[in-house]
Amino acid sequence: MRPPLPYPSTSPSVSAPARTLARDLPSVPPGTAVRLQGWVHRRRELSTVTFLVLRDRTGLAQVVIRTAAGPDGVGHGAPDVPPEETTVEVNGTVTANPQAPGGVEITGPASAGTSDAGSGESGPVITPLTDLAETPPVELWRPTLTAALPTLLDHAAVAWRHPAQKARWEVAAASLRGFRATLDAAGFTEVCTPKLVGTATESGANVFPVDYFGRPAYLAQSPQFYKQQLVGVFERVYEVGPVFRAEPHDTVRHLAEYRSLDVELGFVRDHRDVLAVLRDVLAGMADAVRASGAAERLGVEVPKVPDRFPVLHFADALELVGAPADEPDLAPEHERALGQWALAEHGSDFVAVEGYPMAKRPFYTHPESAHPEPGSGPEASRWSNSFDLLFRGLELVTGGQRLHRYADYVAAIEARGEDPASYASYLEAFRHGMPPHGGFAIGLERWVARLVGATNVREVTPFPRDLHRLVP
Amino acid sequence: MRPPLPYPSTSPSVSAPARTLARDLPSVPPGTAVRLQGWVHRRRELSTVTFLVLRDRTGLAQVVIRTAAGPDGVGHGAPDVPPEETTVEVNGTVTANPQAPGGVEITGPASAGTSDAGSGESGPVITPLTDLAETPPVELWRPTLTAALPTLLDHAAVAWRHPAQKARWEVAAASLRGFRATLDAAGFTEVCTPKLVGTATESGANVFPVDYFGRPAYLAQSPQFYKQQLVGVFERVYEVGPVFRAEPHDTVRHLAEYRSLDVELGFVRDHRDVLAVLRDVLAGMADAVRASGAAERLGVEVPKVPDRFPVLHFADALELVGAPADEPDLAPEHERALGQWALAEHGSDFVAVEGYPMAKRPFYTHPESAHPEPGSGPEASRWSNSFDLLFRGLELVTGGQRLHRYADYVAAIEARGEDPASYASYLEAFRHGMPPHGGFAIGLERWVARLVGATNVREVTPFPRDLHRLVP
Repeated sequence: MRPPLPYPSTSPSVSAPARTLARDLPSVPPGTAVRLQGWVHRRRELSTVTFLVLRDRTGLAQVVIRTAAGPDGVGHGAPDVPPEETTVEVNGTVTANPQAPGGVEITGPASAGTSDAGSGESGPVITPLTDLAETPPVELWRPTLTAALPTLLDHAAVAWRHPAQKARWEVAAASLRGFRATLDAAGFTEVCTPKLVGTATESGANVFPVDYFGRPAYLAQSPQFYKQQLVGVFERVYEVGPVFRAEPHDTVRHLAEYRSLDVELGFVRDHRDVLAVLRDVLAGMADAVRASGAAERLGVEVPKVPDRFPVLHFADALELVGAPADEPDLAPEHERALGQWALAEHGSDFVAVEGYPMAKRPFYTHPESAHPEPGSGPEASRWSNSFDLLFRGLELVTGGQRLHRYADYVAAIEARGEDPASYASYLEAFRHGMPPHGGFAIGLERWVARLVGATNVREVTPFPRDLHRLVP
Repeated sequence: MRPPLPYPSTSPSVSAPARTLARDLPSVPPGTAVRLQGWVHRRRELSTVTFLVLRDRTGLAQVVIRTAAGPDGVGHGAPDVPPEETTVEVNGTVTANPQAPGGVEITGPASAGTSDAGSGESGPVITPLTDLAETPPVELWRPTLTAALPTLLDHAAVAWRHPAQKARWEVAAASLRGFRATLDAAGFTEVCTPKLVGTATESGANVFPVDYFGRPAYLAQSPQFYKQQLVGVFERVYEVGPVFRAEPHDTVRHLAEYRSLDVELGFVRDHRDVLAVLRDVLAGMADAVRASGAAERLGVEVPKVPDRFPVLHFADALELVGAPADEPDLAPEHERALGQWALAEHGSDFVAVEGYPMAKRPFYTHPESAHPEPGSGPEASRWSNSFDLLFRGLELVTGGQRLHRYADYVAAIEARGEDPASYASYLEAFRHGMPPHGGFAIGLERWVARLVGATNVREVTPFPRDLHRLVP
């Protein structure tokens, strides 16, 4: 047999120190030899000194290479610093410098004799790990990315390396952590539901057809039917996954594929119990974003999630914004006005609007239990036990209580002129005992965009998909 | 405006106790009035007593209803216990009973006067929360589900309610928690990459075509290209998401849609560094499964993940199993034999096979750095820096080091007769500086199946998708 390889791999040089991350440099005692790895974020050549700013996953580190001065007092021969974006290893010494970021910089080894750069400079040793990088399509070292959105999207793999862009995704990743941590602690079970489905979830419109072994299939528009069925198994479930909408409109708030943070729970009394869980979830997400430090680096304020969201009934919301009482939905300007109202009256970035008209909600929506129309059955109720949550004047979450009785489903489906038989496998759960339940779905991209102040969800999505964009 | 509704919703009866979960009953002092909610798991009517086993998300609770005996000493009138699977609320009193599960059961209220059942029994009050359930298609109260797999799959929403089936998914959910916790602690960033792609990821075969606004698109077979690009941004990334394979074969280990646990990391020396991360990830997953208690309830042993996996070179593995030296891949019987070898020689449920022939690996695979063929360039090397990890004799993970130089990609793609231009946006990342990197992908369903001893991945997947199955 072959001789065993080292495992985990040992460093090529056994005496080399372990890798130090940029974030940890301020706590390394000056004079310590360190090994850094990362990208050349910026190189700046002055007459006798070259600055290299190294970028790794935790931040930036300043590396200083002093060029030996000639008899004329001017440096000769540019030091061998690779171009920006080249990945390098830097071996040098930690040196205190109050002007440097974090109060430290990397300079030449304390003992110049250990340098193997062979260039005669006194600077630290810089070793490229790959070929020298070509000039990036966007200037990553500038404090802000100034390129137009299409350029940023076309060159996403490179543009996302910018620290501010990277921090936007760190807000998203922290939000996912906070979402799961809150729900795990509350007895929820994470589930995975199929994205390939035999029938369109909620309507025949806006679905992507798939050729499934020669048969028609569709991409799931939401995990709605499955998360409800799984309430029958686990009571409380959540899923983070892609959902697909063949949105024919090109707007700043819609994507053809986005991340839906779905929650569903049983044994609720009505949608207000669902709203209470939503509050805890958003508070957990906000806390995790705060803890990540990404919002602070972006200079954006993480919303304070109130103990209870202000809640308005849909009818009252219409009245408040001066809309006709028979409007079936809230227009974007209404949402903005309600956001301003919540901030002014309740100091809240959030406001929930409950009771949306049944006519505008999907068939599984539970009619309003508090204010039914006189003498009417469930399907004839005008209002519903559903809500939208507005975040800074924009719809962020849709949720509510669902029907839980089999007969109500049959009636609701038939009332829409559809055949309950085409929902047979979904409805089976309700024939065999389902508790009163409800849930909600948060759009991750909308949450992040609103939080970081991006006007277009594409600005916070690494590889967005829309009417025009399928690449990269 | 309408009067505000209670928020969170208050109980219909203000004096009713908060809900108690089955799991918590043993720690409730006997004599305490409790309110339980859940499903009628089993009802068993004897002459003077009816047992109702209630199932909630945390377990089972025994409820005892004593029927008033008539002058003949026999109970008269069956108590009003709804049929199995009906969701109910039970109000009763905790009573010690060493024979009952957990040592406690629920009996009638200490003070009979508070009963509002109106049925004259002395049992606890049982209130259906929905219509009475129809008889389930499978008998959920039996210790094991005896129905055939197609029946279980056809009636998934109900069959998964069985405690043993539910515990299988709890193994999966715990595994996801352990996966993320391990990687979060190691500085990895969770990413979300598109599932709708413009070109097939690794080959034109086995992809599902999608009608994307009238243009052709495909479902991603893996997040490979995107996770590599994001190593350029975050260094260390992971993703849990669906991947899609139009598998034309109907086997016990393949699904058309499954959950891939993807990891990719930069600044590695070779694939052995990747293997070290894989070890930690699997150890974290096994720990989380152990902590969940689900494996214990299933009576299965959670594997001990060794500090280091035994590693065999592909050439040595062939020799060990007595296969010809020019075999390009390991057959299932070879994998089984290697699993037995690892257990016998190293006491390990895991064994890694490294150095797979380049010819059987995707174009982005890094050739072997330790044992290159004499005088050959990277693309001519026979062996690769890639590995498979076998778990109990079955391939569970594929991983390895990837190419990181742009020129190597161009050469590798051209060597396969393809045009690098069709990979332009992927390759852009490599033109602008990518570190040596590698990663792996774990199939969630295979991991769970192997861990719980299921022979077919469909047994551990709530709504599997395959050649024949798109519903439910």
